[in-house]
Amino acid sequence: MSLIVQKYGGTSVGSIERIQAVAARVAQSHKQGDQVVVAVSAMSGETNRLIGLAKEIEPQPAAREMDVLVSTGEQVTIALLCMALHKIGIDAKSYTGSQVRILTDNSHGKARIKEIDGHKMQDDLDAGRVVVVAGFQGSDENGNITTLGRGGSDTTAVALAAALNADECQIYTDVDGVYTTDPRVVSTAQRLEKITFEEMLEMASQGSKVLQIRSVEFAGKYKVPLRVKSSFEDGPGTLISLEEDDLMEKAVVSGIAFNRDEAKLTIRGIPDQPGVAYKVLGAISDANIEIDVIVQNVAKDNSATITFTVHRNDLSAAHKLLNQIAKDLGAIEVEADDAIAKVSIVGVGMRSHAGVAAKMFEVLAAENINIQLITTSEIKIAVVVEERYLELAVRALHTGFGLDAPD
Amino acid sequence: MSLIVQKYGGTSVGSIERIQAVAARVAQSHKQGDQVVVAVSAMSGETNRLIGLAKEIEPQPAAREMDVLVSTGEQVTIALLCMALHKIGIDAKSYTGSQVRILTDNSHGKARIKEIDGHKMQDDLDAGRVVVVAGFQGSDENGNITTLGRGGSDTTAVALAAALNADECQIYTDVDGVYTTDPRVVSTAQRLEKITFEEMLEMASQGSKVLQIRSVEFAGKYKVPLRVKSSFEDGPGTLISLEEDDLMEKAVVSGIAFNRDEAKLTIRGIPDQPGVAYKVLGAISDANIEIDVIVQNVAKDNSATITFTVHRNDLSAAHKLLNQIAKDLGAIEVEADDAIAKVSIVGVGMRSHAGVAAKMFEVLAAENINIQLITTSEIKIAVVVEERYLELAVRALHTGFGLDAPD
Repeated sequence: MSLIVQKYGGTSVGSIERIQAVAARVAQSHKQGDQVVVAVSAMSGETNRLIGLAKEIEPQPAAREMDVLVSTGEQVTIALLCMALHKIGIDAKSYTGSQVRILTDNSHGKARIKEIDGHKMQDDLDAGRVVVVAGFQGSDENGNITTLGRGGSDTTAVALAAALNADECQIYTDVDGVYTTDPRVVSTAQRLEKITFEEMLEMASQGSKVLQIRSVEFAGKYKVPLRVKSSFEDGPGTLISLEEDDLMEKAVVSGIAFNRDEAKLTIRGIPDQPGVAYKVLGAISDANIEIDVIVQNVAKDNSATITFTVHRNDLSAAHKLLNQIAKDLGAIEVEADDAIAKVSIVGVGMRSHAGVAAKMFEVLAAENINIQLITTSEIKIAVVVEERYLELAVRALHTGFGLDAPD
Repeated sequence: MSLIVQKYGGTSVGSIERIQAVAARVAQSHKQGDQVVVAVSAMSGETNRLIGLAKEIEPQPAAREMDVLVSTGEQVTIALLCMALHKIGIDAKSYTGSQVRILTDNSHGKARIKEIDGHKMQDDLDAGRVVVVAGFQGSDENGNITTLGRGGSDTTAVALAAALNADECQIYTDVDGVYTTDPRVVSTAQRLEKITFEEMLEMASQGSKVLQIRSVEFAGKYKVPLRVKSSFEDGPGTLISLEEDDLMEKAVVSGIAFNRDEAKLTIRGIPDQPGVAYKVLGAISDANIEIDVIVQNVAKDNSATITFTVHRNDLSAAHKLLNQIAKDLGAIEVEADDAIAKVSIVGVGMRSHAGVAAKMFEVLAAENINIQLITTSEIKIAVVVEERYLELAVRALHTGFGLDAPD
């Protein structure tokens, strides 16, 4: 007998029919003898409907009352899912975040979970019940309702799994697992059986949006095995696990991630002296603009060049700031370019294999793709290329690292 | 400075515009220096929408989950009303029934309030805040969400007023007070300045549906002065109070109530012996049919006649039962009549005035209206007449007892 936490998102519970399909899926696990805790989101569209009501009154409503309002969305789902489970003969009981209780800090709208009391849930499970918990919400020390922010239902599921020492946390979504790359770009992309938390983090932060980054971090921290599955079809999904076992049979590179939401800024000819990187990048950060890739080089004349990328939406603000900074520092010029894309190869296997970077550059060179920037981490190599080469680069790397599905 | 509890029903908070109008009304009291606690219902239509979702899954959903589901309706309203109050510069804080906490028994869907903790609310009031509480809901000793049943928001308001020792509990509705009779029947009906709890109970149970009977009983029990006011226009409304002061200036009869939802059944020629009333009426009650008026007489031949009224919807079931009972008891005949109506005069003044009944019968006789049944209580005289005479009877009595508004 295993203890499984399952999470179903808004699309999976988007209608009465879909809620009934979720109930059938939960019943299947329950009948296999598993103890099942289910975390659910609001029915798709409901959260936006509630936010719409609030905005009719006030564009910036008080965060505390916003949480009282939107938390009703998941509360509706837990009740309906329990009814659907009862209907097919499964004993089930619902809990709001406050009822569990999921104790959070008091940052309304973006609260963090501090503690979960698993006793009531464990009692229900031991009595043969399915436990259905409202995702995305909790309450603070004073009993105020809080929400974890958008996508927080994944985090709820992982936190429940950690609190109950579950054997697995299954995230049901509209894809049937994590792929070697986006199948819309590379038709030969394959579902991964397994991926490590670190790889998943790199894949997610590089733009493969299957799971909320925060929930993956959380799962890694609390050592909760995570599995991504499809709400709509059967299948094993992808297991995100701690262990790097079976790695010998595994490819050196697990997946190709990419991101076309970034833009690149370069400031050239800065007199090189200690602190210039801080002067440049500190000012950008202070304006609440997130910076992704950063590369700095020093030219022969000892002047420095700093290149970095920001989200495309922030480009014009960052560009303006950078022009001012260039003036202050006596830099020679500033360049901005939004026709770029970032492509990354990710894999824990590259730790123990030399020459992975060289192989990557070789593959891109063979396609005549010029590399503008390179950054590396222990399990990732990312390059920035012209945006028009993005698909070509991804396909070439996918083939080059042996990730294509067999015919 | 007074402490006022205000209750706004579903129609009063039925749209964002109306919620804003309620906020303006609350702000008015707050600015006058009153401490204000507001109890609200779900936006009109919302409870039915939620029930509809549940019924799509299961016609008889579990009561516990039904309460989890429908309690979201008021939770949405409290958040939106607080936002609307903030918008016009009033500090306000919302509480669900569980948060207050309003402790109830565990009869889901028809729970009764056991206790209310007023401390958090009093702290907020003392800090200058308006407190907004979800009506109709609470939680039991184990933290399960409960609802008080339809119309329960009135009861919440009265219970809050009792717990906080409020100076007045104001029920805002779509009429501007309690009238001497239904103004749609008698155009000269007048709003009453004051009415006693007992009169209100008689008026309400006789079909003047301004307030939930249960909340009036509750207010009487806890000596909470109750005031019915209009959500849509200014005005003093009607005060429902404990004191019968100023009665000397008050009319003997306060109002005329009527009810056309009843039907009459008569069983004639029952051999008169102890226990026949029980045999007849016990069987009807056992079938869960509610009986209103009961009259029994004994004829010269010692045979008994029993006449009683039931809701019209129950007539055919009751008639069938009665035929069987008549056979068993050897009664002579059974008669059923659904073309009847009940008209009552209500007033604490009649306690100390003789001849009120005689006056009533005189007024009806003058209009040639035949009285089929008569029942009396200390502060009410009710008669059953042919339905076609209902309006005429109400108008004649309204005039006869001096209730018509001056021209």
